[in-house]
This record gives sequence, C-alpha cells and structure tokens, in this order.
Amino acid sequence: MQSHGHTLKAFDQDLGDLRALIMTMGSFAEAAIEEAMRCLVERDEAAAVQLVEADVQLDELEAEAERRVVELIALRAPMADDLREAIAALKIAGVVERIGDYAKNIARRVRRLPKKRHVEPLSLLPEMAKIAVGMVHDVLDAFVERNPEKAKAVCQRDDALDDFYESIFRTLLTYMVENPQNIGPSTTLLFVAKNLERIGDHATNIAEMVYFAATGERLAEPQPRDEGA
Amino acid sequence: MQSHGHTLKAFDQDLGDLRALIMTMGSFAEAAIEEAMRCLVERDEAAAVQLVEADVQLDELEAEAERRVVELIALRAPMADDLREAIAALKIAGVVERIGDYAKNIARRVRRLPKKRHVEPLSLLPEMAKIAVGMVHDVLDAFVERNPEKAKAVCQRDDALDDFYESIFRTLLTYMVENPQNIGPSTTLLFVAKNLERIGDHATNIAEMVYFAATGERLAEPQPRDEGA
Repeated sequence: MQSHGHTLKAFDQDLGDLRALIMTMGSFAEAAIEEAMRCLVERDEAAAVQLVEADVQLDELEAEAERRVVELIALRAPMADDLREAIAALKIAGVVERIGDYAKNIARRVRRLPKKRHVEPLSLLPEMAKIAVGMVHDVLDAFVERNPEKAKAVCQRDDALDDFYESIFRTLLTYMVENPQNIGPSTTLLFVAKNLERIGDHATNIAEMVYFAATGERLAEPQPRDEGA
Repeated sequence: MQSHGHTLKAFDQDLGDLRALIMTMGSFAEAAIEEAMRCLVERDEAAAVQLVEADVQLDELEAEAERRVVELIALRAPMADDLREAIAALKIAGVVERIGDYAKNIARRVRRLPKKRHVEPLSLLPEMAKIAVGMVHDVLDAFVERNPEKAKAVCQRDDALDDFYESIFRTLLTYMVENPQNIGPSTTLLFVAKNLERIGDHATNIAEMVYFAATGERLAEPQPRDEGA
C-alpha cells in the first residue's frame, strides 16, 4: 500500500501543478481582455499590436499543459476518475486559450475605429467586459477549489451578459440607421460585443465541466437563446 | 512479444473505431452547414428550428468520443506516441463539435431575415459555405488517412475563404450605407459570413494537428490577418 499511496500523492501533486498552470493561463487571459478593452477605448493601436503578438504565449502555455497531461497519464497511469480529471484539465486549458483568442480579436479591431471621433456605445462595452472577466475569474477559482456551487453561480451570470449583448446590439443598430457614417465603427463594436458574449459562453462551458467533475451530474442545459443578429 | 503485439493491435483497432466515430461527427457537421445554408436561402424557419435541436446529437457524439478516449487510455495504457494520437483524436472531436455549433448559429439567424424581400449578397454566401464544407471534408479525410500533404493543402485554402469573407463584408457595408432598411438583414448575413470564416479557421486548426501528428513538425504559423471588422 505504501507504493500505491506514494503514486496517488505524486498524481495529486502533478495535477495540482497542472491546475496552477491553468490558473496562470486564466490570469493571462483576464489581463488580455482588460488590456484589449483599454486599447479599444483609448485607441491605443501600438499596444493593441503588442497584445495580438503576446497571445502566442498563451498558445505555448496551452501546449505546455497538454505536454504535462500526456506525461501525467503516461507516468502515473491514473485510474478512471483521476484520468477524467486530467482530461478535464486538458479541455479547460483549451477553452482558456480560446478565451485569449477573443481578447486578441478585440485588439485586432482597434485600428478599425476612427481615431478622433467619439463612438457610441463604447462606454457600455467596458462594463460588459467587466462581467465577462469576472466570470472567467470566478470559474477558474471554482475549478481550483473544485467548487460546484461557485461554478453554477457563474452559469447564472451568463444571462446578464447575454442581455447586455442584446441591448448593445440594438443600440448599435439604431446608431447605424441614424447615420451611415456610424456603420463602419458600429460594425466593429458589434463584433467586439459578440466576442465578449462568446467569452461568457466559454466561461459557462468551463463551469459545466467543473460542476460535472465535482458532482457527476450535468447542469441543466440552458434554454437556447436567440443571438442578437 | 505475442501479448505486446496483441495489445498494439487492440489499441489500433480501438483508435480506428474512434476515428470512424469522428468521421461520423464530421459528416454530421458538414450536412448541418449545408442544411443551415439551405434554410437561410429558402427562409425555411421550421427546418432551421429542427436543425438547432439536432445539434445535441453532435454533442452526444463528442461525449461518446471522450468516453472512448478515456476507456482506451485506461484499458490499453498506450505509450507516448499512441497516447498523443488518442489525445489528438479527443481534441479533433472537440473542434468538430464546435464546427457544428457554427452551423447551429447560422440556423438560428434564419428567422431574422425578412421573408419576402430578396437580400443581397445571399447568393454569395452559399458559395462561401461550399469552400468551408470542402475544407471540413478534406481535413477529416486527411485525418483518417494520416496524410500531412492533404492537411497542408487544406490550410492553404483558408486564404481563399478569408478573401471571400472580406469581400462579402465590404459588400454588406455598402448595402447598409445605401439603405437603412438593409442594416438589419445585412448584419445577420455578416454574422453568417463570420461563422463560415470561423469554420475555415477550425478546419485549419484540425489540419495543423493532423500535420503535427503525422510529421512531428509544426506547420508555419499563418500570418495574422486582419479580420474584416
């Protein structure tokens, strides 16, 4: 039993390291969303270009997470439950990487906005981004704590984000109708809002995995919502 | 050596079954994209609703693929290379499921289009969809054949798809500027075009995994392209 206990402990240690790596990825992704929004609001094109380039670091962290999962499985030969946890960590790392891609997409759009003119409703988007960042933050806390209730609470916040998106979408349409000059910038902001809404979907997706891993039960599928367009 | 040979064969058999399952998912996703485009062009709202509901089948196939990967690893305890192949199959199943989500998103937009009025450039979108479906089809062939050259060729077609998107994007903007009545429907089509472009990105993503699995080398990262908005 000694050696079995030893193996178990080594697996838990490795899995703990893997979770820490995924937390690092999460912090990176959160910071990227915030910085992308700052670049957008301040039309900071130079910083936006840097942010797009920095995304490769998140890709590398994901590749590192994958390497570690493969190593962990090959070395520790975990049994069914542990194996599922390792696979779940791999999937979550993939989702965090995609959240980073959305931040990158937002940064790419900065140069599409007019430099001088005030663009509405640019003031609403950072508020929407705060909800999205908060969801990413809390769902990764839930992941590390293996806390199903916290995961579930994150899912519930996705409705607020969807409502925010819908409201911004409608507002943007009215700006476009009002003045054809707004069509280009409004379209850019529409894609930004959509990216933020997708980040919320991905956070929800992680929450469902965390909930399932912790309880063995599936969260009820959310009602399919129509997406504003 | 007999038993080692036996184990190898069993692993290959299981992996073959897993690949067949992923091909089934691919066929499902391809058909879903085509049907979503038909619904869009013909404003077939009833069929679009059915298509959205049918997507759950693809989710179930992905869950089945994941179960099989976990089983395969737990039962056959594959060595590093085989393990990586099993993990790659898991990741590819996840990407195919996301491709299905894009088809679902397109289907969801059908009811946003005006029923009677002709909407431009609705005639271009099915052509764009054909390229996307062709990429999905060929990359899954490359996956099953473990054919790196075919995978590479798929990546190269993504440029054509991106150009198509850019062209449709610009066309849609001109329609919106021309007549405010076009803004709503054009925005809907803009999201459809974006979904098709993203399907191409995902096919490229699979192609990179297939190429890496077959050659051990990374395909050169494509130049970051600006996305039309």
